[in-house]
Amino acid sequence: MRGLVPLIPTRLPSAPVALADRLRAVRRRTLALCDPLTPEDMMVQSCPEASPAKWHLAHTAWFFESFVLKEFLPGYRLFDERFSWLFNSYYQSFAAFPEKRLRSSFSRPSLDEILRYRGYVDGALEELMSRELHPEAQRRVELGANHEEQHQELLLTDILNALFTNPLRPAYLAPDPGSSQATAEAETPTLRDIHFEGGICQIGSNGSGFSFDNEMQRHRVWLEPYVLASRLVTCGEYAAFIADGGYRRPELWLSAGWDAVQAHGWRAPLYWTETDGRWSIFTLRGEQPLSALKSAPVSQVSYYEADAYARWAGRRLPTEFEWESAAEDQPVFGNLLDSGRFHPVPSADLEAADRHSRLHQRRLFDFPTDPFDGPLFGDCWQWTASAYLAYPGFKPLNGSLGEYNGKFMSGQMVLRGGSCVTPVDHIRATYRNFFAPETRWQFSGIRVAS
Amino acid sequence: MRGLVPLIPTRLPSAPVALADRLRAVRRRTLALCDPLTPEDMMVQSCPEASPAKWHLAHTAWFFESFVLKEFLPGYRLFDERFSWLFNSYYQSFAAFPEKRLRSSFSRPSLDEILRYRGYVDGALEELMSRELHPEAQRRVELGANHEEQHQELLLTDILNALFTNPLRPAYLAPDPGSSQATAEAETPTLRDIHFEGGICQIGSNGSGFSFDNEMQRHRVWLEPYVLASRLVTCGEYAAFIADGGYRRPELWLSAGWDAVQAHGWRAPLYWTETDGRWSIFTLRGEQPLSALKSAPVSQVSYYEADAYARWAGRRLPTEFEWESAAEDQPVFGNLLDSGRFHPVPSADLEAADRHSRLHQRRLFDFPTDPFDGPLFGDCWQWTASAYLAYPGFKPLNGSLGEYNGKFMSGQMVLRGGSCVTPVDHIRATYRNFFAPETRWQFSGIRVAS
Amino acid sequence: MRGLVPLIPTRLPSAPVALADRLRAVRRRTLALCDPLTPEDMMVQSCPEASPAKWHLAHTAWFFESFVLKEFLPGYRLFDERFSWLFNSYYQSFAAFPEKRLRSSFSRPSLDEILRYRGYVDGALEELMSRELHPEAQRRVELGANHEEQHQELLLTDILNALFTNPLRPAYLAPDPGSSQATAEAETPTLRDIHFEGGICQIGSNGSGFSFDNEMQRHRVWLEPYVLASRLVTCGEYAAFIADGGYRRPELWLSAGWDAVQAHGWRAPLYWTETDGRWSIFTLRGEQPLSALKSAPVSQVSYYEADAYARWAGRRLPTEFEWESAAEDQPVFGNLLDSGRFHPVPSADLEAADRHSRLHQRRLFDFPTDPFDGPLFGDCWQWTASAYLAYPGFKPLNGSLGEYNGKFMSGQMVLRGGSCVTPVDHIRATYRNFFAPETRWQFSGIRVAS
Amino acid sequence: MRGLVPLIPTRLPSAPVALADRLRAVRRRTLALCDPLTPEDMMVQSCPEASPAKWHLAHTAWFFESFVLKEFLPGYRLFDERFSWLFNSYYQSFAAFPEKRLRSSFSRPSLDEILRYRGYVDGALEELMSRELHPEAQRRVELGANHEEQHQELLLTDILNALFTNPLRPAYLAPDPGSSQATAEAETPTLRDIHFEGGICQIGSNGSGFSFDNEMQRHRVWLEPYVLASRLVTCGEYAAFIADGGYRRPELWLSAGWDAVQAHGWRAPLYWTETDGRWSIFTLRGEQPLSALKSAPVSQVSYYEADAYARWAGRRLPTEFEWESAAEDQPVFGNLLDSGRFHPVPSADLEAADRHSRLHQRRLFDFPTDPFDGPLFGDCWQWTASAYLAYPGFKPLNGSLGEYNGKFMSGQMVLRGGSCVTPVDHIRATYRNFFAPETRWQFSGIRVAS
Repeated sequence: MRGLVPLIPTRLPSAPVALADRLRAVRRRTLALCDPLTPEDMMVQSCPEASPAKWHLAHTAWFFESFVLKEFLPGYRLFDERFSWLFNSYYQSFAAFPEKRLRSSFSRPSLDEILRYRGYVDGALEELMSRELHPEAQRRVELGANHEEQHQELLLTDILNALFTNPLRPAYLAPDPGSSQATAEAETPTLRDIHFEGGICQIGSNGSGFSFDNEMQRHRVWLEPYVLASRLVTCGEYAAFIADGGYRRPELWLSAGWDAVQAHGWRAPLYWTETDGRWSIFTLRGEQPLSALKSAPVSQVSYYEADAYARWAGRRLPTEFEWESAAEDQPVFGNLLDSGRFHPVPSADLEAADRHSRLHQRRLFDFPTDPFDGPLFGDCWQWTASAYLAYPGFKPLNGSLGEYNGKFMSGQMVLRGGSCVTPVDHIRATYRNFFAPETRWQFSGIRVAS
Repeated sequence: MRGLVPLIPTRLPSAPVALADRLRAVRRRTLALCDPLTPEDMMVQSCPEASPAKWHLAHTAWFFESFVLKEFLPGYRLFDERFSWLFNSYYQSFAAFPEKRLRSSFSRPSLDEILRYRGYVDGALEELMSRELHPEAQRRVELGANHEEQHQELLLTDILNALFTNPLRPAYLAPDPGSSQATAEAETPTLRDIHFEGGICQIGSNGSGFSFDNEMQRHRVWLEPYVLASRLVTCGEYAAFIADGGYRRPELWLSAGWDAVQAHGWRAPLYWTETDGRWSIFTLRGEQPLSALKSAPVSQVSYYEADAYARWAGRRLPTEFEWESAAEDQPVFGNLLDSGRFHPVPSADLEAADRHSRLHQRRLFDFPTDPFDGPLFGDCWQWTASAYLAYPGFKPLNGSLGEYNGKFMSGQMVLRGGSCVTPVDHIRATYRNFFAPETRWQFSGIRVAS
Repeated sequence: MRGLVPLIPTRLPSAPVALADRLRAVRRRTLALCDPLTPEDMMVQSCPEASPAKWHLAHTAWFFESFVLKEFLPGYRLFDERFSWLFNSYYQSFAAFPEKRLRSSFSRPSLDEILRYRGYVDGALEELMSRELHPEAQRRVELGANHEEQHQELLLTDILNALFTNPLRPAYLAPDPGSSQATAEAETPTLRDIHFEGGICQIGSNGSGFSFDNEMQRHRVWLEPYVLASRLVTCGEYAAFIADGGYRRPELWLSAGWDAVQAHGWRAPLYWTETDGRWSIFTLRGEQPLSALKSAPVSQVSYYEADAYARWAGRRLPTEFEWESAAEDQPVFGNLLDSGRFHPVPSADLEAADRHSRLHQRRLFDFPTDPFDGPLFGDCWQWTASAYLAYPGFKPLNGSLGEYNGKFMSGQMVLRGGSCVTPVDHIRATYRNFFAPETRWQFSGIRVAS
Repeated sequence: MRGLVPLIPTRLPSAPVALADRLRAVRRRTLALCDPLTPEDMMVQSCPEASPAKWHLAHTAWFFESFVLKEFLPGYRLFDERFSWLFNSYYQSFAAFPEKRLRSSFSRPSLDEILRYRGYVDGALEELMSRELHPEAQRRVELGANHEEQHQELLLTDILNALFTNPLRPAYLAPDPGSSQATAEAETPTLRDIHFEGGICQIGSNGSGFSFDNEMQRHRVWLEPYVLASRLVTCGEYAAFIADGGYRRPELWLSAGWDAVQAHGWRAPLYWTETDGRWSIFTLRGEQPLSALKSAPVSQVSYYEADAYARWAGRRLPTEFEWESAAEDQPVFGNLLDSGRFHPVPSADLEAADRHSRLHQRRLFDFPTDPFDGPLFGDCWQWTASAYLAYPGFKPLNGSLGEYNGKFMSGQMVLRGGSCVTPVDHIRATYRNFFAPETRWQFSGIRVAS
């Protein structure tokens, strides 16, 4: 059960955490997540979307070095000059960088050296944090912590793909017997319609607390009355869509979606495999029969699949504004990284766990009894019907950091709500995730609307 | 000067045209547009977006046969049973259809037979129109006329590409001496900011007059105050962007746009070629030096180029709602297909032509003197910053026609305003055109906003 | 039955034909072959290997203009300067040339103008031939005639593909009732082994009569004793290979061949289609049931399929040297273009036709009664186990014509014997045709060896 | 200098080595070659031709397990049943196997487990060898040793690519100061013509000693008189070809070669890079300036480049028969793996080393003083003008091992002579290596002929 214990302390206490504490916790968690991995595992880059785990370790150190220490810690010396470009991801205006697909050839620097790099950067960060912090430095440290949390999520997403690609299908973690049992026995609650009135809504970050540039400016949006489903679509429901010929009926699909189905031979979510007529699903806790996950939310579907499912069900996907407006008053709670589940679970399972666990006791008071069946956050990112575009008055950050979000504003759809591998202190109602509509390696699922 | 004369009668008279007259005029114009073409020209399919002109002739007849005559003319017999699937474009639920790229192999049926097919369909339509028309039949005839107008535009767009692809670069029409002279001498008016207040706006068709399903439902949208430029970006201005390294500076581009620049080696709009340091532009009236078109709107740019230009100019692209809200009160007028120009021209040129032409006399009273420099419609489709998505309450048409628009709602951006090859009776303020952001073969240009 | 009659006069008379007569006959036949085609048909380019028929017409005129008239007819003026590069195929050292795939956009020059071009070139050739001819000019004229014959064959090969690609599957010629009947009723003679002793053999052209540079130098090759099959593999035999799982058993295939089977989904020769469990085969005389062609040689197979078939049959393919050595003493006779069949036929059918036809009377004396079942030439090009490489002492022609053959000596396999669309005066025992091993659009078949 | 010492004992003693000793030595050397590598290095798969070093370790154990132990050691139990298919390379008839590109995802089994697998197999082999050996078992053990030697060579070839792909360009081994100095100072001896008479030659293995199935049957070939160059083409000579526009002149290239130059942007051998007008070359001993390697044989060129160079030099490449006939009487000696150089070196350098080294003393008597400048073997595999095809009477091995060589007999060219990473006890005059003509990651060089 390595990898789980260190996660607990990173939960947000009720009082605001000091920035330095938050930074330390985040940095520590990245390493904790690598605990079940070997140096060899950390070399694998198994799909174009993914990076090796080792690269995530290095790149998150590089981010602090490049955008915080170099600018704000007087006398800071680079750990290794070559790392400035070697571990740059995509900041064209910062330095040259290697093609993404080459990352799997970075056997040197070794993992040991990367860990030394991280230690060196951590030391320098400690020194920086011990001084009086320039407000911009403070903003950058906070950005760096959030950046690292994004890579924690990616690291797990990527390693799931890596382990799935390995024909032996090794598990990241052993099954959690209690949770597995609860998941397998969970009933799927009836899907209910939750009604919202719409009208003029405020969308985007109000500037209190951290947010990315793409969540601003806060602005007004007019919403017609709408309905959200009370919970996510389950694996069992999605299996019914498959059984009903979902992947063979072009009328259910967007044109580009149907092309993708044909081109890639899709016939189920990414990690579903069928043997002798029985489906099983590969998870970070190994292969599991569909029968054991029938009430758990379906995950690893593309936008096209989410959209086709919704059409089949006589529904549609919500817009990002409908989702945010509904989520605004909801507590940030759910099956997030901190739950240690590492896989979508039925809400009942989570709720039960919550009720019986001393560790989660505090959350009981926040638990949303009304109107949703379980939390609005967590389990899977929820595809929305909104393209990822700039909000009115959007201003990218200054300098190279302006490339962080803005330059990806084409060809992608917005996802909301976080997943079972998103840290709880990373997600919020205004948070906008985004992927190309054919993306399937993410923990991405479906909440229908109408 | 073949091809021009027949265009004039298709102009909309002041009084509403009877549907039968409109239908006849539209059908006639399709043939008129083919007047400068040989049967061999009409075989060419020179890019994945394009179809042969001959196919456009056949497919527009197929549309009336399949969706009007077969259902609403009792006793109608198909001209040729095989055409039912042969000339189907993409209606999955109607019949099988050949891959798009195969259209260039349709040497048989011959052009003569296609013309007989059109004549046969026209005869049956006359018979149908002579009877009392079922309201749905009336809607379908109107849809068919609009469908055929879309293919008129595509036919010209495609033939421009076909002629450009031919290394000899033959012209579709000879230059129009008067217009060419006026264009070459036109001054570019200073770009002015036109301010709009925003607020709650009504967007989409109000149901009076024809509209496509994707223009509905009419709904409210909140707009923050915004500014539109008083005219389109000119070739001269775009040449300054190129000269300033526009195609070599990644910071100006969306990430996917920069990838496209690299992958395709873009360094100017699609039909621009540079010889010995001088640019020339290929048009339906043949190759012309940039110097003669410097005040004419730039055309055949992708969304990525439009977006990069706007960023370079310190502006952004307008949303489709900003554009529609501004256009709502504007007369539908401009350099559209009916002008017979077949190429974007400076507004001054069009205005002059309008003033001096008896033919256009009636339009003088509509001419928008305020606030824009020239009409908001025509010359080029204007890329907007809006992804092509469903309006609230969107309902596709019933049956196979439901595939007309809805299934393309992913991965495309909205364009507004019509172009120099759009029929005037086809365009309106609520009209939504859409293409993938890398599309360049269209008459697509740029109006900046902020 | 257009297209057949003009073919007859081009047959070689017993006495050597004067070069001028041969030239005229060849030039005339190219046009005769286009007789069944419309200008629209002649625009189609339906696979990467193919060119439009119109292009073949122009390119063969270009060849004479570029390599004969320009150099050897004093005062010759080019028909159109632009054609010098427009109709160049691949001679890098002669002039720039358009990408091959663009040929389908050459709607201009029109077919009429191409025909004028041909007439202009023919006139100039007549003038040239009326003078005393420089020996090199004579060689070039002969090369030009042979070059044009190659394009006659390609024209038919390409048009078969074009008509097959058209979903309506129009025929180039109507079925020939007599021949069809004979073919359908023909018995397949037992496959017999013809033994050869091998030893030191002379391979390549001895320089008497025309040959290409790649047939020289004549040189010695040592052959071990070998066996050739008495006839080509038939469609019926090939159907047995398919029925025995031929396309599903990797052990029968070369590794690259198996990759091609998987990548392209091959499960039969190129023009075979299966409907409700019955195979039919598309030919220049339209679609025909397999049952009517079971004794006809199988055609349109790749090298990989020929090789896999041979392995399945416990045989191998012959080397080009084995084939040539066996063919050296055989008369050049068989189902070649001049038979007017335009499709492989059973030998019995051809023999019967030959016996009863006054036109073919002379050939009766040449008919090889021993040892093969029917002629060694014709029906299909026969894949050999030899890669297309230079003979010892190979010297490409001087100048641009050196690119004719030599630069293709990699990645291709040699085929021997000519096909049902090869002119009889074009083929000979030393003739080396060559294609990449995955090529299937050719009239290419199988003779096994051991 | 790790990795070098263990190589020495593997040199063949004068007396024939007992098979068991040879087996042990080969198995040991595979591990020795991995000595400079980390577990992370051994995960890298940097081009489609390559496999991770770890996979080579596992696959060579798999070969012995699958084809020797399973069949010939009574009671042998598989180390892990899943390895039967996991480490199968391409034997379709043996078991399913994973796609080659997935090998980089095999982080599990870990390197430790692979080493245990090797130890387990080694133990079982010792047990087998202690018994009386079935003749087929003996043949299989010998085949397994040769198979493993092939993978030793591939392992080094692949790791060179892996290290080159890493932007940091780490070296496999440190430079060898003595050798480097000698190489840098070596003069290039004048290229001389060595004449051969040709005639009837015996080609292929005579069955004494080990050979692969593709070297049989021994058969007669007629050779015309020919000339071989006295040494390989050097880096300095190849640099002159580049400087003379070699990569910009289509007339020097095969058509497919010129296509490859354009498609891949080739302008020098694979590991050459130009910075500020100076070329350097990446080797297993790190980056070195061209000036230090000017007399060393050029390596890592494709067949197309070898052919173009030969044409530029007014020569051609030899056929494999010409090469073998010349090599028949030559001692197997040269800069092979056992020299510990790991890079092509000037012959003078090798000769000097040989003269002064006690270790190499025995070889002095074999040294070919006449007629070549240095040995005919080693440094680089020499591209020949022969396609890789079956010899007359070729019979693949029985069973799955029949897939070893035969199924690759299409699309590849033969290379002869071994390279600086080929074990000396692996190479012989009749040995046929083969690669596709565009292959560049090999130690492949050029010997011209005429």
